[in-house]
Amino acid sequence: MKQSIRVVTLGVADLKRSRAFYSDGLGWTPLMDLEEIVFYQAGFGLLFAIWSLQDLCQDVGTPITPGSALSLGHNVDSRKDVDEVIERARSAGATILKEPQDAPLFGGYQGYFCDPDGHLWDIVHNPGLSVADDGTVIFGSP
Amino acid sequence: MKQSIRVVTLGVADLKRSRAFYSDGLGWTPLMDLEEIVFYQAGFGLLFAIWSLQDLCQDVGTPITPGSALSLGHNVDSRKDVDEVIERARSAGATILKEPQDAPLFGGYQGYFCDPDGHLWDIVHNPGLSVADDGTVIFGSP
Repeated sequence: MKQSIRVVTLGVADLKRSRAFYSDGLGWTPLMDLEEIVFYQAGFGLLFAIWSLQDLCQDVGTPITPGSALSLGHNVDSRKDVDEVIERARSAGATILKEPQDAPLFGGYQGYFCDPDGHLWDIVHNPGLSVADDGTVIFGSP
Repeated sequence: MKQSIRVVTLGVADLKRSRAFYSDGLGWTPLMDLEEIVFYQAGFGLLFAIWSLQDLCQDVGTPITPGSALSLGHNVDSRKDVDEVIERARSAGATILKEPQDAPLFGGYQGYFCDPDGHLWDIVHNPGLSVADDGTVIFGSP
């Protein structure tokens, strides 16, 4: 099995509410906006999708335990950028779970917010993480 | 806010169990394997991480509702590849939630499995989805 994720799909309770949060609140531009699902480009060859949890369950064919034991890491170039994204999320109605602060764990700066369904976003400035020209993520100063 | 995901982190109940599933069972090669977290390269500039849910909660500073209202889409080049990945996951101890089958929703072929924590993987052959040279995902035949 190749190590590859092409789509990150979040199941949401109310797609209209989530669309308003991501498209209007955070200002993301949809790549494809359908009545039942919205796709956003979120990286090289990577899609982020919001989909009605009910439809996702129906597609899988089994009930899915709601909840959000995951975190989506959004890396930015500076501490100021972390502050700005957290403020943007706050304005969009996100719950700020952790105000921007030093992150001794990796020597950077981060804040957490959650979207209307409780899905976690980790807004990070990590000077020890970079991406090589071939897409490989590099730990440690480049 | 840029539209970008750098890290997809799944909170897991037992990191040893999850490491065994992903590294040994599915055969993924860690980019960084630490006692408390494992990172895998999962795309261009994209990391997939498994992290103790307890540690994730501690980092966020609030309890997180366990559960998995999300799906990670793994796209492959053929129907046969879907079958092979699902068999590999089955051998690794995954629960197969949907055996490989035609997917009328998008005109492809797919199967779903979940990892030891119930996190969903959607294994997909979608002939109507491709990636342009600049990384943009294209819907519809290229």
